[in-house]
Amino acid sequence: MKALVIDPTPAFHAGYPDPIPASGESIVRVELAGICGTDLELARGYMGYRGVPGHEFVGRVVESASPALRGRRVVGEINAACGRCSFCIDGIGRHCLNRTVLGIVGRDGAFAEFLRLPDRNLRMVSDALDDERAVFTEPLAAAYEIFEQLHLPRNQSMAVLGAGRLGAMVALALRAEGYLPVVAGHHKEKLERLSALGLRTIEEPRLDEKFDYVVDCTGRGDGLRRAIELVKARGTIILKSTAAAGADLNLAPVVINEITVVGSRCGRFEPALEALETGRVDPRPLIDATFPLEDAVSAMSVAAQASNFKILLKPS
Amino acid sequence: MKALVIDPTPAFHAGYPDPIPASGESIVRVELAGICGTDLELARGYMGYRGVPGHEFVGRVVESASPALRGRRVVGEINAACGRCSFCIDGIGRHCLNRTVLGIVGRDGAFAEFLRLPDRNLRMVSDALDDERAVFTEPLAAAYEIFEQLHLPRNQSMAVLGAGRLGAMVALALRAEGYLPVVAGHHKEKLERLSALGLRTIEEPRLDEKFDYVVDCTGRGDGLRRAIELVKARGTIILKSTAAAGADLNLAPVVINEITVVGSRCGRFEPALEALETGRVDPRPLIDATFPLEDAVSAMSVAAQASNFKILLKPS
Repeated sequence: MKALVIDPTPAFHAGYPDPIPASGESIVRVELAGICGTDLELARGYMGYRGVPGHEFVGRVVESASPALRGRRVVGEINAACGRCSFCIDGIGRHCLNRTVLGIVGRDGAFAEFLRLPDRNLRMVSDALDDERAVFTEPLAAAYEIFEQLHLPRNQSMAVLGAGRLGAMVALALRAEGYLPVVAGHHKEKLERLSALGLRTIEEPRLDEKFDYVVDCTGRGDGLRRAIELVKARGTIILKSTAAAGADLNLAPVVINEITVVGSRCGRFEPALEALETGRVDPRPLIDATFPLEDAVSAMSVAAQASNFKILLKPS
Repeated sequence: MKALVIDPTPAFHAGYPDPIPASGESIVRVELAGICGTDLELARGYMGYRGVPGHEFVGRVVESASPALRGRRVVGEINAACGRCSFCIDGIGRHCLNRTVLGIVGRDGAFAEFLRLPDRNLRMVSDALDDERAVFTEPLAAAYEIFEQLHLPRNQSMAVLGAGRLGAMVALALRAEGYLPVVAGHHKEKLERLSALGLRTIEEPRLDEKFDYVVDCTGRGDGLRRAIELVKARGTIILKSTAAAGADLNLAPVVINEITVVGSRCGRFEPALEALETGRVDPRPLIDATFPLEDAVSAMSVAAQASNFKILLKPS
């Protein structure tokens, strides 16, 4: 099959082996896939990944032992859990100790014609939800994870640091659930595009107040440092950037001001699907371009440009 | 009066000016004061402090506009709040934006014959509570702050990193409230002293399991790094060490494993006083020695030795 393969640099392969489903897994033909910051990091060598990247997708089940799944349009939770460890038993397979992760850890991903996932990871998509919206389920689920982890009072001030693809999803999710975050970024055009979606925006250097909640979606190592500057005493920082590095990071204010830092990653698909299906969140204006899979290497370069939100890949 | 003064190195002064009370403040004659890690850091130049250090004390009110306070034995909350800012209005003067802090920020402290504090900071001590226990009210309140910030389920595993003065107070508070933490440290004799108090202890390098809650009381820059290694996915790190520095700190696991980091500092005095008065916590075995104020410089050196828990100063 056609696939983008990292080994160790990303290249298009026309004859990559088709996935072979393990017991309990289905084969999905990928209709549309989204390029995420993690994919760009993997292509730069993050975690030494080898294989097909990509974990945001919508597709159609073409092979399955489950009659209920065969032929259905689906999205898929990306953590393939063992079902036996303490986290699986507690119902959070996303933290399974033995998990593989679609296109990230030990499992080929969605930048290919076909992928395999356990049946229990697949979520059916209603006909009313087109591919251009359904492909945002995974990143929107990561945004909705915030509500799973924290009770957010409505009268609190909130800033989203980073007006990129992740910051946009988080801000859209917060607004859809009745909050009024301000999105702070450096890129004027992107801020204008977010303003056009009805979001409050500000150029980051002009931020001069402190917030009860700060969500770090910068994807940069100094995002947490800035979040610490911007959060009130007793406030909460939600850390969405895995890039949060520590060089020169002074955490004494976290203790002195009794700040809570909550790491936040993937989320359940159900609330995100519901928000997309009801139209509470419509991320389609964030799509900059859709590339055929053959041009995936170029698409990755375009996705890495600061001016873009979301680049999609269409395998067939 | 007699006082230990940092300017910029610590020295004993026989003729330091007596404190002059502002409106609403009382003068307290210090009966006993405790040396804390923060005092040692201030003496080494932390925050550029100039003046009398010391914030753990028990004393007697010798001058006050309040008849209810005159002549009473008291301990004192160390944050002198403005009473007008948003935090004061919310009842958390400990985070007042305009606060001075006894012996730490803009206010001479307890390593002196006398100190001044706002009347509302003073808490009366019952006759049944001797000075040797009452002097632990402030550090024990900092330990009890954990319960103010977090709901801790009883069936969760807990580790206290650091078998020093702070780790000991946190472990004693946790045990007093029905938890069974394990205290991990490097100093064998101190671990044995804590074991003798009925606490579970372990030599830190031998820790090989993961915990639901990890309290960093190491006072060292790498304490958070170690806490991140030792906490379960979705677990909580309580950060008590202001020394938490960031060099080489990789925070990606905080995001990937959705760890919560809660900074924790000073606490309300009431729960600590109650625990001391009822005998649920008896920290007296942690006292290594008591020095006259004239020998405060030596006392600070002794307090800095890794083998000691708590050194006290007796001004008169």
